[in-house]
Amino acid sequence: MKIGVIGYGYWGPNLVRNFAELEDTEIKWCADQRAERRARVKKRHPSINVTESAEEILGDSEVDAVVIATPVSTHYPLAKRALERGKHVLVEKPMTRTVAEGQELLALAQEKGLILMVDHTFIYTGAVRKMKEILEVGELGELHYLDSVRVNLGQFQHDIDVLWDLAPHDLAILTYLIHEPPQYVSATGADHTGSGFADVAYMTVYFANNFIAHFHVNWLSPVKIRQMLIGGSRRMLVYNDMEPSEKVRVYDRGIRVTTEESIYRTLIDYRMGDMWAPKLDNREALSVECEHFVECVRFNKIPQSNAAAGLSVVRLLEAAGKSLAAGGDRIKV
Amino acid sequence: MKIGVIGYGYWGPNLVRNFAELEDTEIKWCADQRAERRARVKKRHPSINVTESAEEILGDSEVDAVVIATPVSTHYPLAKRALERGKHVLVEKPMTRTVAEGQELLALAQEKGLILMVDHTFIYTGAVRKMKEILEVGELGELHYLDSVRVNLGQFQHDIDVLWDLAPHDLAILTYLIHEPPQYVSATGADHTGSGFADVAYMTVYFANNFIAHFHVNWLSPVKIRQMLIGGSRRMLVYNDMEPSEKVRVYDRGIRVTTEESIYRTLIDYRMGDMWAPKLDNREALSVECEHFVECVRFNKIPQSNAAAGLSVVRLLEAAGKSLAAGGDRIKV
Amino acid sequence: MKIGVIGYGYWGPNLVRNFAELEDTEIKWCADQRAERRARVKKRHPSINVTESAEEILGDSEVDAVVIATPVSTHYPLAKRALERGKHVLVEKPMTRTVAEGQELLALAQEKGLILMVDHTFIYTGAVRKMKEILEVGELGELHYLDSVRVNLGQFQHDIDVLWDLAPHDLAILTYLIHEPPQYVSATGADHTGSGFADVAYMTVYFANNFIAHFHVNWLSPVKIRQMLIGGSRRMLVYNDMEPSEKVRVYDRGIRVTTEESIYRTLIDYRMGDMWAPKLDNREALSVECEHFVECVRFNKIPQSNAAAGLSVVRLLEAAGKSLAAGGDRIKV
Amino acid sequence: MKIGVIGYGYWGPNLVRNFAELEDTEIKWCADQRAERRARVKKRHPSINVTESAEEILGDSEVDAVVIATPVSTHYPLAKRALERGKHVLVEKPMTRTVAEGQELLALAQEKGLILMVDHTFIYTGAVRKMKEILEVGELGELHYLDSVRVNLGQFQHDIDVLWDLAPHDLAILTYLIHEPPQYVSATGADHTGSGFADVAYMTVYFANNFIAHFHVNWLSPVKIRQMLIGGSRRMLVYNDMEPSEKVRVYDRGIRVTTEESIYRTLIDYRMGDMWAPKLDNREALSVECEHFVECVRFNKIPQSNAAAGLSVVRLLEAAGKSLAAGGDRIKV
Repeated sequence: MKIGVIGYGYWGPNLVRNFAELEDTEIKWCADQRAERRARVKKRHPSINVTESAEEILGDSEVDAVVIATPVSTHYPLAKRALERGKHVLVEKPMTRTVAEGQELLALAQEKGLILMVDHTFIYTGAVRKMKEILEVGELGELHYLDSVRVNLGQFQHDIDVLWDLAPHDLAILTYLIHEPPQYVSATGADHTGSGFADVAYMTVYFANNFIAHFHVNWLSPVKIRQMLIGGSRRMLVYNDMEPSEKVRVYDRGIRVTTEESIYRTLIDYRMGDMWAPKLDNREALSVECEHFVECVRFNKIPQSNAAAGLSVVRLLEAAGKSLAAGGDRIKV
Repeated sequence: MKIGVIGYGYWGPNLVRNFAELEDTEIKWCADQRAERRARVKKRHPSINVTESAEEILGDSEVDAVVIATPVSTHYPLAKRALERGKHVLVEKPMTRTVAEGQELLALAQEKGLILMVDHTFIYTGAVRKMKEILEVGELGELHYLDSVRVNLGQFQHDIDVLWDLAPHDLAILTYLIHEPPQYVSATGADHTGSGFADVAYMTVYFANNFIAHFHVNWLSPVKIRQMLIGGSRRMLVYNDMEPSEKVRVYDRGIRVTTEESIYRTLIDYRMGDMWAPKLDNREALSVECEHFVECVRFNKIPQSNAAAGLSVVRLLEAAGKSLAAGGDRIKV
Repeated sequence: MKIGVIGYGYWGPNLVRNFAELEDTEIKWCADQRAERRARVKKRHPSINVTESAEEILGDSEVDAVVIATPVSTHYPLAKRALERGKHVLVEKPMTRTVAEGQELLALAQEKGLILMVDHTFIYTGAVRKMKEILEVGELGELHYLDSVRVNLGQFQHDIDVLWDLAPHDLAILTYLIHEPPQYVSATGADHTGSGFADVAYMTVYFANNFIAHFHVNWLSPVKIRQMLIGGSRRMLVYNDMEPSEKVRVYDRGIRVTTEESIYRTLIDYRMGDMWAPKLDNREALSVECEHFVECVRFNKIPQSNAAAGLSVVRLLEAAGKSLAAGGDRIKV
Repeated sequence: MKIGVIGYGYWGPNLVRNFAELEDTEIKWCADQRAERRARVKKRHPSINVTESAEEILGDSEVDAVVIATPVSTHYPLAKRALERGKHVLVEKPMTRTVAEGQELLALAQEKGLILMVDHTFIYTGAVRKMKEILEVGELGELHYLDSVRVNLGQFQHDIDVLWDLAPHDLAILTYLIHEPPQYVSATGADHTGSGFADVAYMTVYFANNFIAHFHVNWLSPVKIRQMLIGGSRRMLVYNDMEPSEKVRVYDRGIRVTTEESIYRTLIDYRMGDMWAPKLDNREALSVECEHFVECVRFNKIPQSNAAAGLSVVRLLEAAGKSLAAGGDRIKV
């Protein structure tokens, strides 16, 4: 299987390194518009052909699949052309800039019988896969809330705001873990550079049954925090991605709600039990993901981070954008 | 100076213990409706008179000041009667249940020339006082955002939601640190016990100049987090109240925004410098506060946590309640 | 039961506060040579009689038990006189300054049929009692090592070195957890104030079966660390007393040793499994201990931190002192 | 400049990757006895020649320098042959298995005018270089102690004990930071696998002026700790290599010692001031080191981790081995 990688900027080198380690897969091309990046590809991987033009890759009939690691606004046109030329696609997150574009790509991939996978890297980590396992067996009981913080003194983007940059990671995890469809979104935030793009933002997603998810993303934080809390009726979970080990901790903690008949008020009782941190698979997530992409292409399997998942993330981002512009007003998803 | 304390539940014992250590101050009375609590007062402080009835204290002409540590809904009637009888008042946070009640108390205290102070304990900590110092000298530059998290597997309250229970601490800090008036509030949250009171809530406060403050309060968190980030144009600050020492850290980190004339986009440059954690005064905040109350009464000084500050907090809570009910819609303060 | 407390310095106030909360126990006396401390007792506990002289307490026939919270060198004479006058004794750690003194007190208490208990506070914490439980059921397998660090910018003592000041806490835990008798001690350290007393010290205790225990105590550390590792053949344990919760963590980690017949070398295989943090009893250790002392006196029970345990700690300290003077040479216990 | 790398096991791949990124340097050869490792070299770096035999590299006259990343016992014979054939050498730590071997290599390199550098990676980290800077300007005052902990559930070695495996990192840092010569060593430890090699060990190094250094190394720890404390008369420093940022923290803490004339005792006064974490250079240490090696070869400069530093580390390890065998007895260095 022959692969072409488009874009060798921030994330491209990681994709190239991981695909290069796979057996029976060959990176035939790597495209980047900047000469110094192409030179870096050549120094590290002398056998890969480099080019300035993505078209050269898309036009090579030997190429089975393309990996798109370019700025968000180019995802749609590049993925569209690749699918039209019969190539499988692995595209960076977020999949597209609009829901309409996402729907079009999804339909096109289905029509052509091609794999369209989105690089939702975090769902391939040992931590998130273990969380999925824990949730699927009902370990946490009925889910109450998911609270996510992803902040850093970050990589400012020039074409998107902090929600579009950082929240896709967490919205992809949300989409992977929670089967219920989101109903409403409320988002707030602010822009401090005059660029027109928020650099600090908050987003609440409402679901049925009072389940609520909240996201804090921030490019202006002096410290790096990547933490997610999930509260359930039976147990609660903390996912701290900054911990070197024990990233996932399950707390046997909760409340017991009883209603006293004679009086009007609800009685709430605490429960504080043990904590447990399961062993996690430590393989590099991107390596697991690259293998998964190759396997999906070979055996025509549905990727875990397929186009539908990519579209769900874009749908939440689009709604959040509208709410943010309105100062927090509730928007239907 | 003779003091009467009303309420010996969760916080009352701390107030009694701290006032008891002061020189030249005498706790004459402690009232509580429950016999076992009155017995506990007697065991620990044999010289304090106990009573079932707050009225007995309010009616004692020897009592100069009363300390009100009862459920929120009783703050207004108790404080009102105390002021009417010419007694100075230190009342638990939040000061009242409504803005209207707060305005009435503030006016009454002014009319009578009495001290009305709110127990905003956190502004008397060494950490928050140091933060005030740092902000006042402009150390952080222009302020961009304040982000606060106060979560725990908490003390459920029966008459108020989690915003009214936990956010007063952080809103009091906000009010103490930030001179600008808040403009809008957006709040989201959910109730998982069927009590009608949210147990997880988020609140964004908009100010002029793109300064934004956000608060996360939660009674259902498996872990205790009490952290505040303040981002400025020159430096950034982290206040982590769970740290045993170095609770306040100032990061010489930020961004430099330049606009390239020739092209359309904003260029953003990072700055990563040293970190610095100032030495803090470690005295117990409540002890500092009790001393301050006695001093304000004696010398007729304006308390740092005066009725106006208490009212600002109630005003934000009232607006947040309206927004929460509307699913996040922006409410003018 | 009537109690007299001798010494109201650093630890005395905690003892008085805890005994004062007990039902059916009365603190009749508190002795301290300094007037300002006696005044503090009076302010906080008006019903307790104060005196400058320990003799006044020892001579009061109504006093059933005395609590000795004075400098180490006075433990022996005070405890001896108390026992001679028929009073039960709770004495601060370390029990005595020498093994000979400890043996004499132990014999005297036995002869008189009196309780002689040492204030090894840590063995009454929920954390250490849970560790005992875990070890007793063999959860860790065969024990390999215990490593303890207790460092701080500390309370310099004027009559003892850092080993005698801080190590008793950890040696008491060792004595409580490990039934095997120690065999040899090697200790190193240094004195940086010219006082003749080491302020940084290290101590290794050798047992049979290659079990080894090591202690690091330090008055000159900029940070406070209180951590103990216990490694076993099946599992390993970390006790971090600075954690606000989850102080005890059990790791399902270890090694599997096999010997390949054909070749000379030992093969070692790693095992990395889950981590588990048991729920702990959060009661204040000193409160549990005070209750235990009263119960032992009433029902003539053997205290968990009895004179034999106190003597074991003194024996290790005495051996460590000799090794320290010899620059680390191995000393038989 | 042409380089040959001998050994592609645990550390070799990092050396190859870093030398491969350098400009004007070419890795001509990589030797490893295992076929699967040679295949891995070829997959990642198709332009490097692979061989089973180190001799092939040593015999290639085009090779200017060799990098030796093989088990410790082979360092001496390989380095010796390389030097004899006129090649510059970068050898893994510890430099040799004995002081005698180390002295011979040092003399040989001097005689031949060749660079002999030891891979003391940690001294090329931003953290350790910043610590050196801080110490050199006297920021900490007179040094009192250095305390180092490096523990993990580790890579058991088959030919050396845990001291020889892990302590070289910390002894290299000690040698780099402290100019005074060590005087005595006392070491304790235990072997729990029956291999004859200690897996838990402690080592105290005595210097003049009461400066003391202590090292804890452990292959059986459930948690990974890499922390160093350095206490001085003016300030104290903590180097925590597990922190993602702020690895070095300087505490304005200490003691003031005064001697009261009238009485016999030393008075000690605490000082608790600010904490400060300097910005660190974040370049990968090994990359800095590889560049430094090439520069030393090119311009005939003395490496920072030269053979004399390597020999100092071996000298301490040899003394520690003797003390360990004697149960802690003090050994002259």
